[in-house]
Amino acid sequence: MKIRPLGNRILAKTIKEEERKTAGGIVLPESAKSDKVVRAKVIAVGSDEKIEVKKGDEIIVSSFAGTEFKLEEEDLLLVKATDILAVIK
Amino acid sequence: MKIRPLGNRILAKTIKEEERKTAGGIVLPESAKSDKVVRAKVIAVGSDEKIEVKKGDEIIVSSFAGTEFKLEEEDLLLVKATDILAVIK
Amino acid sequence: MKIRPLGNRILAKTIKEEERKTAGGIVLPESAKSDKVVRAKVIAVGSDEKIEVKKGDEIIVSSFAGTEFKLEEEDLLLVKATDILAVIK
Amino acid sequence: MKIRPLGNRILAKTIKEEERKTAGGIVLPESAKSDKVVRAKVIAVGSDEKIEVKKGDEIIVSSFAGTEFKLEEEDLLLVKATDILAVIK
Amino acid sequence: MKIRPLGNRILAKTIKEEERKTAGGIVLPESAKSDKVVRAKVIAVGSDEKIEVKKGDEIIVSSFAGTEFKLEEEDLLLVKATDILAVIK
Amino acid sequence: MKIRPLGNRILAKTIKEEERKTAGGIVLPESAKSDKVVRAKVIAVGSDEKIEVKKGDEIIVSSFAGTEFKLEEEDLLLVKATDILAVIK
Amino acid sequence: MKIRPLGNRILAKTIKEEERKTAGGIVLPESAKSDKVVRAKVIAVGSDEKIEVKKGDEIIVSSFAGTEFKLEEEDLLLVKATDILAVIK
Repeated sequence: MKIRPLGNRILAKTIKEEERKTAGGIVLPESAKSDKVVRAKVIAVGSDEKIEVKKGDEIIVSSFAGTEFKLEEEDLLLVKATDILAVIK
Repeated sequence: MKIRPLGNRILAKTIKEEERKTAGGIVLPESAKSDKVVRAKVIAVGSDEKIEVKKGDEIIVSSFAGTEFKLEEEDLLLVKATDILAVIK
Repeated sequence: MKIRPLGNRILAKTIKEEERKTAGGIVLPESAKSDKVVRAKVIAVGSDEKIEVKKGDEIIVSSFAGTEFKLEEEDLLLVKATDILAVIK
Repeated sequence: MKIRPLGNRILAKTIKEEERKTAGGIVLPESAKSDKVVRAKVIAVGSDEKIEVKKGDEIIVSSFAGTEFKLEEEDLLLVKATDILAVIK
Repeated sequence: MKIRPLGNRILAKTIKEEERKTAGGIVLPESAKSDKVVRAKVIAVGSDEKIEVKKGDEIIVSSFAGTEFKLEEEDLLLVKATDILAVIK
Repeated sequence: MKIRPLGNRILAKTIKEEERKTAGGIVLPESAKSDKVVRAKVIAVGSDEKIEVKKGDEIIVSSFAGTEFKLEEEDLLLVKATDILAVIK
Repeated sequence: MKIRPLGNRILAKTIKEEERKTAGGIVLPESAKSDKVVRAKVIAVGSDEKIEVKKGDEIIVSSFAGTEFKLEEEDLLLVKATDILAVIK
């Protein structure tokens, strides 16, 4: 089963706290302040040519952007590419 | 009887929980979080050439988009094509 | 007496519940959910060439769109053509 | 004394209930629903060439549009021409 | 001392109730309804060529438009020219 | 130390009440009404060529526009040039 | 690890109170008023050519703009370049 985002949207998998820590990289703390961003991994991108990210990119997205849902035990996120704040290299 | 959506709108049939489960595919849980999306099947599309979906496509739509109503025991949804988040293949 | 809608507006006559039932077609139930749409018949269209409906068409309109008023015992509705959700054939 | 509306605005005289009835035409009832529209007669139009109404036209305007004031015992209304819903012939 | 309005703004002097009455012209009553408009006299206009009023014009402005302040005992109003409803001749 | 405003913004120094009085010019009273405007002196302008004011100009700005902060005991204001209401000559 | 801001966004490091004081420059007081601005240092800029700041610039940003988060004990800020109020030289 495959989900294809439309237009300028991208599909991403939300990265959970435990995964974030073991990756050794960014650790977003538990405080209220850090709830403003979500880290995620791009799974698929829509048809819009202006999208600056590609499959596999790790991204930072505002917690207030996009629509979250669960699919086969994974936390997914459909968000407009223009709402992605940054890419983590 | 036939309903023809206007402009960039599409008509879809909301897929009920039981149907979703038997289809073996996406299971949107009952939690509050999952209430943010609705799964539906496209029945008809409007005249706008930019519409990216076609009759028969299964789509994911934000619960806050479009207008729902009942017709001959079916849950229908009239929604702008630009409010469709993704297509499920 | 005649009412001529301006610009991209159309004038429609709201179809009452009893009429809807005897027509044998769409029966919009009494529940809160169904209050989101109104069924109506187009009486006159404005001067805008982009209007996709014509006199006599039966339409579905969001309950939150347009302006309702009473004229000679009829429930009329002046609504922008772009707020018409669909045509019923 | 003369009031000249600016731009795409028109000046109209609100038609009172008693006048509306004796005119034999539209009778907008007293109910809350009918409070959504106001009937008025165009007195002057602004400089915008796109204005579809002319002096003397009877119009239907949303009650929420425009600005009302009193001048020499008359109820006047300054409203954008694009907020006029329809012309009564 | 001189105040020069910028862009599409105009500077006007608010006409007080007593002045309005002695002028023999428009008398805006004290009721809540009439509080929706303010009568004023144009003192200076900004640089925008589209401004339809000139120095000396008496204007009607919505009470909700522009910014009022006091200068040397006068009630002044800085308002966008597009928010002027009408000119009184 | 120098602050350079970006784009169509300007940096201004808010003129305090005592300074305003001794200057003999505009005296904005203490009432709630007069709180709607602030008088200030332009210190620097951004790169936008459309800015109509220059360094040294005294300006009137809506109290609701721009962002105030303190630097070395001075009350500064960063505001978009289009939010400046007027220049005082 | 590197964070690359997208589009017209920039990544900045928020400058803490103690650092601001020792730098001898701007001291934003603790009062409510001064909470309206944040001082920060640009770390990276997005791909948009219109961005007026570069890496290393010290900037003033409205406290209400952008999204803050913590990375490896640093307070970071992702903000649209058009929301930067000024550069401190």
